[in-house]
Amino acid sequence: MMTGKQYKASLKDGRRVYYDGQLIEDCATHPSLASAADTVESTYDHYYKPGADALSDYMSVPRSVEALRTHMVKHSDMLTEITFASTMTLLTAGDRIAKIRPQGRENIQAFVRHVQKNDLRMTECITDAKGDRSKPPAKQDDRDAYLRVIERRSDGVVVRGAKLHISLAPLGHELMTIPTKAMKPDEQEYAIAFSVPVNTPGVKIINVGKPPLSKDTRDFPVTSQMFISQGFVIYDDVFVPNERIFLDGEAEQAAVFAHSLGLWTRALGLARMADEADMMAGLAQLVAEANCLEKVSHIKDKIADMVIHATLIRATLEASFANSKLSPDGVPVPDELYTNAGKYLGASNYVLIVRNLMDIAGGSGLTVPSMLDLENPDTGNLLRKYMATKSSVDGEYRMRLLQTVRDLTATSNGGYRVNANLLGGGGLFAQRVVTRGRYDMERAKRLALKVAGLEKPASA
Amino acid sequence: MMTGKQYKASLKDGRRVYYDGQLIEDCATHPSLASAADTVESTYDHYYKPGADALSDYMSVPRSVEALRTHMVKHSDMLTEITFASTMTLLTAGDRIAKIRPQGRENIQAFVRHVQKNDLRMTECITDAKGDRSKPPAKQDDRDAYLRVIERRSDGVVVRGAKLHISLAPLGHELMTIPTKAMKPDEQEYAIAFSVPVNTPGVKIINVGKPPLSKDTRDFPVTSQMFISQGFVIYDDVFVPNERIFLDGEAEQAAVFAHSLGLWTRALGLARMADEADMMAGLAQLVAEANCLEKVSHIKDKIADMVIHATLIRATLEASFANSKLSPDGVPVPDELYTNAGKYLGASNYVLIVRNLMDIAGGSGLTVPSMLDLENPDTGNLLRKYMATKSSVDGEYRMRLLQTVRDLTATSNGGYRVNANLLGGGGLFAQRVVTRGRYDMERAKRLALKVAGLEKPASA
Amino acid sequence: MMTGKQYKASLKDGRRVYYDGQLIEDCATHPSLASAADTVESTYDHYYKPGADALSDYMSVPRSVEALRTHMVKHSDMLTEITFASTMTLLTAGDRIAKIRPQGRENIQAFVRHVQKNDLRMTECITDAKGDRSKPPAKQDDRDAYLRVIERRSDGVVVRGAKLHISLAPLGHELMTIPTKAMKPDEQEYAIAFSVPVNTPGVKIINVGKPPLSKDTRDFPVTSQMFISQGFVIYDDVFVPNERIFLDGEAEQAAVFAHSLGLWTRALGLARMADEADMMAGLAQLVAEANCLEKVSHIKDKIADMVIHATLIRATLEASFANSKLSPDGVPVPDELYTNAGKYLGASNYVLIVRNLMDIAGGSGLTVPSMLDLENPDTGNLLRKYMATKSSVDGEYRMRLLQTVRDLTATSNGGYRVNANLLGGGGLFAQRVVTRGRYDMERAKRLALKVAGLEKPASA
Amino acid sequence: MMTGKQYKASLKDGRRVYYDGQLIEDCATHPSLASAADTVESTYDHYYKPGADALSDYMSVPRSVEALRTHMVKHSDMLTEITFASTMTLLTAGDRIAKIRPQGRENIQAFVRHVQKNDLRMTECITDAKGDRSKPPAKQDDRDAYLRVIERRSDGVVVRGAKLHISLAPLGHELMTIPTKAMKPDEQEYAIAFSVPVNTPGVKIINVGKPPLSKDTRDFPVTSQMFISQGFVIYDDVFVPNERIFLDGEAEQAAVFAHSLGLWTRALGLARMADEADMMAGLAQLVAEANCLEKVSHIKDKIADMVIHATLIRATLEASFANSKLSPDGVPVPDELYTNAGKYLGASNYVLIVRNLMDIAGGSGLTVPSMLDLENPDTGNLLRKYMATKSSVDGEYRMRLLQTVRDLTATSNGGYRVNANLLGGGGLFAQRVVTRGRYDMERAKRLALKVAGLEKPASA
Repeated sequence: MMTGKQYKASLKDGRRVYYDGQLIEDCATHPSLASAADTVESTYDHYYKPGADALSDYMSVPRSVEALRTHMVKHSDMLTEITFASTMTLLTAGDRIAKIRPQGRENIQAFVRHVQKNDLRMTECITDAKGDRSKPPAKQDDRDAYLRVIERRSDGVVVRGAKLHISLAPLGHELMTIPTKAMKPDEQEYAIAFSVPVNTPGVKIINVGKPPLSKDTRDFPVTSQMFISQGFVIYDDVFVPNERIFLDGEAEQAAVFAHSLGLWTRALGLARMADEADMMAGLAQLVAEANCLEKVSHIKDKIADMVIHATLIRATLEASFANSKLSPDGVPVPDELYTNAGKYLGASNYVLIVRNLMDIAGGSGLTVPSMLDLENPDTGNLLRKYMATKSSVDGEYRMRLLQTVRDLTATSNGGYRVNANLLGGGGLFAQRVVTRGRYDMERAKRLALKVAGLEKPASA
Repeated sequence: MMTGKQYKASLKDGRRVYYDGQLIEDCATHPSLASAADTVESTYDHYYKPGADALSDYMSVPRSVEALRTHMVKHSDMLTEITFASTMTLLTAGDRIAKIRPQGRENIQAFVRHVQKNDLRMTECITDAKGDRSKPPAKQDDRDAYLRVIERRSDGVVVRGAKLHISLAPLGHELMTIPTKAMKPDEQEYAIAFSVPVNTPGVKIINVGKPPLSKDTRDFPVTSQMFISQGFVIYDDVFVPNERIFLDGEAEQAAVFAHSLGLWTRALGLARMADEADMMAGLAQLVAEANCLEKVSHIKDKIADMVIHATLIRATLEASFANSKLSPDGVPVPDELYTNAGKYLGASNYVLIVRNLMDIAGGSGLTVPSMLDLENPDTGNLLRKYMATKSSVDGEYRMRLLQTVRDLTATSNGGYRVNANLLGGGGLFAQRVVTRGRYDMERAKRLALKVAGLEKPASA
Repeated sequence: MMTGKQYKASLKDGRRVYYDGQLIEDCATHPSLASAADTVESTYDHYYKPGADALSDYMSVPRSVEALRTHMVKHSDMLTEITFASTMTLLTAGDRIAKIRPQGRENIQAFVRHVQKNDLRMTECITDAKGDRSKPPAKQDDRDAYLRVIERRSDGVVVRGAKLHISLAPLGHELMTIPTKAMKPDEQEYAIAFSVPVNTPGVKIINVGKPPLSKDTRDFPVTSQMFISQGFVIYDDVFVPNERIFLDGEAEQAAVFAHSLGLWTRALGLARMADEADMMAGLAQLVAEANCLEKVSHIKDKIADMVIHATLIRATLEASFANSKLSPDGVPVPDELYTNAGKYLGASNYVLIVRNLMDIAGGSGLTVPSMLDLENPDTGNLLRKYMATKSSVDGEYRMRLLQTVRDLTATSNGGYRVNANLLGGGGLFAQRVVTRGRYDMERAKRLALKVAGLEKPASA
Repeated sequence: MMTGKQYKASLKDGRRVYYDGQLIEDCATHPSLASAADTVESTYDHYYKPGADALSDYMSVPRSVEALRTHMVKHSDMLTEITFASTMTLLTAGDRIAKIRPQGRENIQAFVRHVQKNDLRMTECITDAKGDRSKPPAKQDDRDAYLRVIERRSDGVVVRGAKLHISLAPLGHELMTIPTKAMKPDEQEYAIAFSVPVNTPGVKIINVGKPPLSKDTRDFPVTSQMFISQGFVIYDDVFVPNERIFLDGEAEQAAVFAHSLGLWTRALGLARMADEADMMAGLAQLVAEANCLEKVSHIKDKIADMVIHATLIRATLEASFANSKLSPDGVPVPDELYTNAGKYLGASNYVLIVRNLMDIAGGSGLTVPSMLDLENPDTGNLLRKYMATKSSVDGEYRMRLLQTVRDLTATSNGGYRVNANLLGGGGLFAQRVVTRGRYDMERAKRLALKVAGLEKPASA
């Protein structure tokens, strides 16, 4: 296993990461990535155990529903969570493709062992550039709009394309790369799944995301704990050796990876969403109390909305656990129907929760001055005076609550959160489609026919 | 136990039930009650077992979470379900008041045995007339606005007041009567819980609800299976013997009964709601298929909404089971947080589900002609011709689906359903308040403080 | 002009109207139609002026925006409003088809003069049976699924088909019959618009809708003033003389009639919707006051929702008037963009307004006993006692308010209203499509390009 | 009048503005204010006319409804719009207080002439620190929680307090300062309205808001055109001379100013909101076209939602103009009922519009790389290749559209916009209360009584 320090050193491996038009020298220390790297570093140190055979407790595969539940409520930093989700995705997909491509499954298992043994981090590279969304891969003006194999060699393949919205790509070691969707028989060149190290020749990452620049982390309490950058990953003719190829040309299996990924990222996302919804309800209550408004009817009403929302989200998580099933290999799989319904609810209503929190906090949820102004003798005492609400609520305490509201809702981190809650896992439409697909409509139709006094549907 | 026939005969006991200004001679056969009485009759026959000691399987008290789940998805007619809910309510409340009023618990247990042994039905009389809603019972212009004890005798008490919205009151044997809310120390006269037979002198029920008058039940497939009338029950100086008094004067315990009732009626209501939401999604799908619109995007979208709604309702039911607890006596109690959140969701969104179903069905969901017109040779073949959509969907089949939509949404049964879904269990506001009350806000605040980097709330 | 009495007599003309499997003898007195006929009768008497050349004030065509506004807020009974809308529809359509079919316009003008001079009522027959909704008229299993010309004679044509959801068809004199949608070049047989008297041989109307059967109209204050039945109108090989044909075979003009009808029915519907939204807000306020709840926060909140809704509806009506344009003939035409947006808002939110009204009224909005029970000496005083809330709010007054709530929301009239508000004018999807179609998207794109700092869209 | 250059120079007047713990040397050039100052500068240059008596066209008071409409759709930079709104506010309030305090009106008129003649900018200082929101000003632990007079002198008064959320306060010349709400008889010291120059001794502004730091304004197309900072304005014992006092001690008139301000800021805000809603609909359409998704059903549906929303907003603006009234002085006053209903709609639904725009844009609406990466030869061509969708939509064009989406929704500017749309004009609750207050409820009750068949309400 690696210590945090070793992790940071490991990122200096010649990877080509760009930001605002410049090549980044060292991802671990670059201003746009340093806070995120620090967070990952502390996870490494937290789980570190010495010894050549040591494995991270976090990376172990749960073997029962109870173990899964325990694991899923034990949040980690986002890169480590992504690595866990990728591991579960690959193992799940490996089982599913084993009949068609036994070598793929073996490569997956060897790769997972390699990642676990070396305590690596990997990111999920799935969404293609896509070009004209109304046309399939093979009909694009530019055939590289979806990542594809452009050359075959005896020892591997050469791929070309781009993968977008890759969270924390510059801070991981491996790029787990899978098809974005189902492919058709004439789209074999696009049915390619593999992993390559980030510093592989031809890989370029254009990184996006500006962390706040303040000397006082109390001004950005959320962002400073959790800043997520997004990478635009370009595979500019990248060689993939045979042992790292998981799928190659089996077009009918292309969707297996995306489907497995959807299952695990939505389930982990839902677990996180449930706690965040609770956290936001709690924050609303604290702010209302600090504003001495906790007994006002419309404020209570808005908090009750947040409470109901949080409870409905958690109900789907509970239902998903209660209805989870063990895979043939004994891995517990959360129920997809409830997971997707919960994810859809969270995605569609997140903005309403933000609206409530803002409305409860009032204007100061946007305009609270910097904590640095509290340190300035010209202004500090005046701020303390005017930001206090009564003798038991001092100005600094209230300012820090309001900075938290601001950072959750009105900074670029707030924007990221709205976007990620909405689009993580594929957007509202995708989550609806999946929910509908997992629903037992035949049972529902039977219930309706019984009420109607009819025996069978017309089409039967 | 009673057979259905014995049940019907048992209703002819001198009870005073009024309807549209007239005293009803025989509740079992009166046009406004006959279809509901028929339904109860068939439940009696379904569960009937001979023998003096026989007990109804439906009335047995579940002793494990699994038994509770099994029981709650095994729907019965509404009167029988209400009787079960009342039984559970009394047992739960009996445990809770045992310390303060041990005799109350004993009376409850004896009464429940009596009901079970004689296979009786009872209804839930809780909501008072209430008078001026802005004032407490003791401050009303008319002190009888809440039911109260007006006289004490050695062998019992005399009560006066009215209980409103009592579903199926004329068809039960007992009126389980409990305080509508918490009472204050100066409201002892209102802290009275008891049960009396429907034919007790002084009891008058004014019954409300017009079942459809059609010669063809296919015109009202829902109403003819499930018609719920509401009784306005007046206690015009009614004597209650000591052994039927469960609470009398212990004002601080007055809310225990309403609270226990809320728990069980909401839980049973949620189980029913979950199946009805599925049924309505299935009906929407069948109608869309009969209209050949099942592949149209906005139709699919509306059905997906119904599916998501139904799934969220069911998730709360699943979460409620998964988090249920055993009472000290070993009775499983559904989790109230999830039950109430689910009930609120169902209550607030029911009209949107109705809207979707209507929108999918189109105008014929309101204007579909009577099945009687199908029997008329002048019009039958023409109707069949124009109500068919393609060779595999004949006119009669489609008309029956549309009659089901109509009866679920646009008849007075539809109106009843909207009202009952919305107000059953106390209205939106009450369900919000209960959800908020059961929520672990302290944990939520801790989560928020952690994100804010603060150690404790200001009020600490 | 006709008096009310003459009107009723005029309905006994041999028309073939069926109800619940029976032929109706006299529409003016049949229980299912009598209350509606009475309402129309009183309008006749209201507007009656003697003299051979007298014309109804209501039927005059407004010639300025101000006259239009005055006319549209001057509600009448539904049949008379429909006749006015049909008149405006025909005149608008006549202008639009004049170039292609001058004879059609002349026939329209002669027909409108005939209707006005004889003080007739006409209904709008537009929606076809439609068969398989996924296929065009000419591809149906049964080609009669859309009304069409099946035979041509020198003096006219013979048509076959059915028109559905025809409000009050049995009570009018003429069936204005127009294509339901645009037709393609190979669908000429379906491009037929005309009018025939209701008693024309071959016309059969199957009527739908059960008015409440109570001896006391106070139990149904809304329905007894406004009961709308729907007719299923069958054209079983009906001859239409040449002078009553408005369009015949000009497939490219088929949509003109539906479009003109949409314009006028939505505009008149919006004017009615605005007043009804106000009425429901006022009713909610009255009920809250009668329940002594008008100062409770969540009640005020729900009424505020109703007020905002009503105001937004009215804003679209005001905007529609303010942006109306004069046709080449000097007839003011309401703005379609605002009309449709308002109609959509009203249609999509109507159920929420109903929900609020129910929630404010509480259970008695469903379970209020019959006014007949108030007349019964056994129950009258008790009802009065328990339905009062304080000395200034007596039981009868409050019961009548609650009966109004019940009849607006929970009777079959309530179901009709939800359905009509939702689907009148074509359903949510149609209203969205029209709104989008009338919107100036090019201007919106220019505004966006300016913000983006771009000069022109990519497609230019 | 001033040129832009003179304007910038005028800001260097000794004002004490703080930012991130530091005193700002020159507001016109400080990084946090420079872009906003540049925008104001260009407005000055745009309207500049030479001559001692020249007056800005923008600052003239409209004298007819048509002139008002023309003025309100002629947007300017925010500081200039605020100055116009403040002018209208003062003139409206001056008329209303004239009877009680004639000197106040005279001072206002002289002050407005001074502002117009010297081409000054002023900001609206209204919201107090407020302390414990559950208590009135005079009951606060700290009596300065609301700004108040602490000393009276022969030539003026000394005030102490703070005003929060003051948009662009450091860039104006005058701080128009008015009571935040109605005051009671014992709160005379709080009934103070006045204006003082920004550089008055004792005034300190702590400024908040971080504009983005990018070398390429195409990365922040919205923010770089419109960045709004917020000032926390402290009156640390500030002297106000008599001639600048508009109200002093007339507690019963304290709300007049806030009310006048509400009228004008909501009306101007609504006019801006209407255009922004159109702009966002247009942007959604452009992005959908650039993504080749403009024909996909759920995308069209989301755009239709945005179109309907924009149309409803505009309808309220149109209705507000159509129902505006002239004040006794001949100044047109927009209708408050429609203005507030429109503002409420815009405020409550803004987040849904943002959600739709994000959902349509997809992940790249957050993760689009910097335009600087387009200039880097290592990455530029690759970005162009993978951000293009088809030959007619090049990568740079699409990136700029996506940057616009990002800057509107996911940057701190996006957060500002959500907050400002929600809370500008007082938050959802305030806007509901005002709408309800302006609604003609008596008429609504009469409509309901008529339907109920009742003559008068119970309370009459």
